[in-house]
Amino acid sequence: MSANPQLTEDGRLRHLLTLEGLPARILTQILDTAASFIAVSAQERDVKKVPLLRGKAIFNIFFENSTRTRTTFEIAAKRLSADVVNLNINASSQSKGETLLDTVANLSAMQADMFIVRHAAAGASHLIARHVAPHISVINAGDGRCAHPTQGLLDMYTLRHYKGAFHNLRVAIVGDVLHSRVARSQIHALTTLGCPEVRVVAPRTLLPRDVQNLGVHVFHKMSEGLRDVDAVLMLRLQNERMRGSRLPSAGEYYKHWGLTPDKLKLARPDAIVMHPGPMNRGVEIDSAVADGMQSVILSQVTFGIAVRMAVMSLLAGAGATGAQT
Amino acid sequence: MSANPQLTEDGRLRHLLTLEGLPARILTQILDTAASFIAVSAQERDVKKVPLLRGKAIFNIFFENSTRTRTTFEIAAKRLSADVVNLNINASSQSKGETLLDTVANLSAMQADMFIVRHAAAGASHLIARHVAPHISVINAGDGRCAHPTQGLLDMYTLRHYKGAFHNLRVAIVGDVLHSRVARSQIHALTTLGCPEVRVVAPRTLLPRDVQNLGVHVFHKMSEGLRDVDAVLMLRLQNERMRGSRLPSAGEYYKHWGLTPDKLKLARPDAIVMHPGPMNRGVEIDSAVADGMQSVILSQVTFGIAVRMAVMSLLAGAGATGAQT
Amino acid sequence: MSANPQLTEDGRLRHLLTLEGLPARILTQILDTAASFIAVSAQERDVKKVPLLRGKAIFNIFFENSTRTRTTFEIAAKRLSADVVNLNINASSQSKGETLLDTVANLSAMQADMFIVRHAAAGASHLIARHVAPHISVINAGDGRCAHPTQGLLDMYTLRHYKGAFHNLRVAIVGDVLHSRVARSQIHALTTLGCPEVRVVAPRTLLPRDVQNLGVHVFHKMSEGLRDVDAVLMLRLQNERMRGSRLPSAGEYYKHWGLTPDKLKLARPDAIVMHPGPMNRGVEIDSAVADGMQSVILSQVTFGIAVRMAVMSLLAGAGATGAQT
Repeated sequence: MSANPQLTEDGRLRHLLTLEGLPARILTQILDTAASFIAVSAQERDVKKVPLLRGKAIFNIFFENSTRTRTTFEIAAKRLSADVVNLNINASSQSKGETLLDTVANLSAMQADMFIVRHAAAGASHLIARHVAPHISVINAGDGRCAHPTQGLLDMYTLRHYKGAFHNLRVAIVGDVLHSRVARSQIHALTTLGCPEVRVVAPRTLLPRDVQNLGVHVFHKMSEGLRDVDAVLMLRLQNERMRGSRLPSAGEYYKHWGLTPDKLKLARPDAIVMHPGPMNRGVEIDSAVADGMQSVILSQVTFGIAVRMAVMSLLAGAGATGAQT
Repeated sequence: MSANPQLTEDGRLRHLLTLEGLPARILTQILDTAASFIAVSAQERDVKKVPLLRGKAIFNIFFENSTRTRTTFEIAAKRLSADVVNLNINASSQSKGETLLDTVANLSAMQADMFIVRHAAAGASHLIARHVAPHISVINAGDGRCAHPTQGLLDMYTLRHYKGAFHNLRVAIVGDVLHSRVARSQIHALTTLGCPEVRVVAPRTLLPRDVQNLGVHVFHKMSEGLRDVDAVLMLRLQNERMRGSRLPSAGEYYKHWGLTPDKLKLARPDAIVMHPGPMNRGVEIDSAVADGMQSVILSQVTFGIAVRMAVMSLLAGAGATGAQT
Repeated sequence: MSANPQLTEDGRLRHLLTLEGLPARILTQILDTAASFIAVSAQERDVKKVPLLRGKAIFNIFFENSTRTRTTFEIAAKRLSADVVNLNINASSQSKGETLLDTVANLSAMQADMFIVRHAAAGASHLIARHVAPHISVINAGDGRCAHPTQGLLDMYTLRHYKGAFHNLRVAIVGDVLHSRVARSQIHALTTLGCPEVRVVAPRTLLPRDVQNLGVHVFHKMSEGLRDVDAVLMLRLQNERMRGSRLPSAGEYYKHWGLTPDKLKLARPDAIVMHPGPMNRGVEIDSAVADGMQSVILSQVTFGIAVRMAVMSLLAGAGATGAQT
């Protein structure tokens, strides 16, 4: 267990870098802690702040811009009463020729308590985690195509919220699995949490070569892949893919892979529809589905705040007493 | 009254989108609440914060950049002990092809309590207000040429502060009325609050066609328009207008429409001079006037913080007990 | 004493613009106050915040971008429980043609308590300090080549921390003195605090003409300049210099002026190595030195937070009771 850089020697969460290799016990602890924050929020609508991280300094270190992701972490940190410092690094030290590790060492020396890291390069947050001081935790907020663990966790939270458990679920992940850091996190979490049937549904050009090794069932037709599933997890089709050679056109993609009300009828009647946002309406998802009764897309966003609060409070060592405050 | 999207069914402030259609009762309530904050601030210089919005999340959603306006709202929100999240949207989701309403739905789902919206398109904040969750209020911080209601309100506060009342005032609004969202807000507020004589003083090319319908007196000469007024409300001449075909040159504009000490002598001796900033010294206003005894331009900025605190606290439903804290 | 714009008539700190002309008494007071914050921070690791500046509004006004410097001030202000507003001015009012003094007058009118100013032009913060309202203090966070006083102060703090006192020190400042606002601040502080031997070690092309007037010993060879010093204060070589005509190449510079383990052996065995960051490894400093036992470069960053807290709390008039909270 000490080989996992995300865990302390006694098995507690030290960093959150990827869902790969995290034991079910930890995943469940995060979901349970998030549930306690949701409960607090529902009971006492007017006082959403808890003082768990008062006096802690959380640094949002974004080497690539993502207003949405940065905002969710900022809100979560402020709800925990932490001080938040936003750093957009492109424009500054990096252009001055400083190395990534020197930048991080400097920020560490400012007595930060936690780093939220977004970087275009896979493994950047792992590299940083290996070099921070012992009192600093690192959360990966997306690195290259590799991982986006809090997104995967909020997806698990949403599934458990609406479906109760994982052991009897049939889940379809649909779309551009190849370029998606979200899909990878989802697959790891679902298999770890005991979901018996994880499907990926995608054209061959948008699947990684090793996808079968991940323990999933592969489908190349929506008509087969969606049949009788309990949840459809749509992936975003990035604009740059549509202009590339892997796909004929956005319209063609929509025809075959876009989630329309008709295609959704193949799933179980109580199936839920999820999407990590931002959506391309009329490309990977039809507006009637996005705004329909089965869509839980906006709930994902709300749960995402609670999940990020849970991860932060667990990393800060305050998780055990999280909900009682 | 329920037809006004800015008011609740029982007539309380729900959103602040435009001063158009707001009853005098509401305008006066905002000014009175602002006065209570000014009083608190004057008495206890060292403790300017009040806990009215503790735990509330205020989102500054700026689709176009305006450091000055964003800062005034940020300061006002922090004085009320709210948490403030700044979002510059140009660079992010909008460029990813997400619709405005999806962006807003996502931010709503992050359990925001209030949106401060700045957008280049007229009506953007109205559109957003129609689609937010019931617990979220929207404040328009400037949309296209249409409205900038807190600017109009702080102008009213300033007039009342220095002149005591509106029922005996003669006010001149001078300059580029056509392109000014400020002028429109001022005209609506002044007529609603009972100002008997509102003048607009401008070249024909810088007046909207329907200006007379707004209940104002139109003048095309400073020598006539400024005579015996109690207040001169200067408008900013935007740089891009000076380069356009509507005006000969900045120097020519200054000669005819710039407020100089000489022209100001036409007004009443105790007339005050206002300007929404940023000023073009030597274009629409002479430095001797801007920095002179009759200028209350910097007081406008100070009052603007109190007015924004007032609007926010009223929207949050805490207005009734605002000053007693 | 009243001639010094940085001091009140009774000799207390009013603004921090430059270390030039600041009496040793004030410098020592700042270092002592910083030491009290370090002590608090060391004792009670978990509660790093002190309420000294609660309710105060600190404006980070950055006319040129510097994420690192802005962050250190932001962290320091938040540790003192102040509200921090970050303003990046390039993009806003300045481009609208407003004058610097109008921008500042407007920000003052927002009831700011303190301005942290970064500007490319020498003297900008002095100009601003001359025009702010009596209750507002200005801290220079770097202006042109002129001064960067909090960097100089944190260097003094670091020297005193590791060496105990100044009266018996031999210090070498090495590198691009000509373009360094840091070097100038260091020299003033060291001579004022009674350091008996301040050396500058640099090629002739990177020295200001009047350098001897500053009370320093000039060396043009590392082999002589580093001999028996107690501290080596490296300066950053800015990338643009390397491309200019003043220097042959980065490699050539490293060969003659880069601090290698071999060159460092000329200094006293217990000599410390300092650098203001960001470092150009392999240009002005070798990685073995930067990461070596004698390097205190990251301690400088940590002390920098405490020094900035000290300056802010002294300017806010709360310094006397700073550490007891």
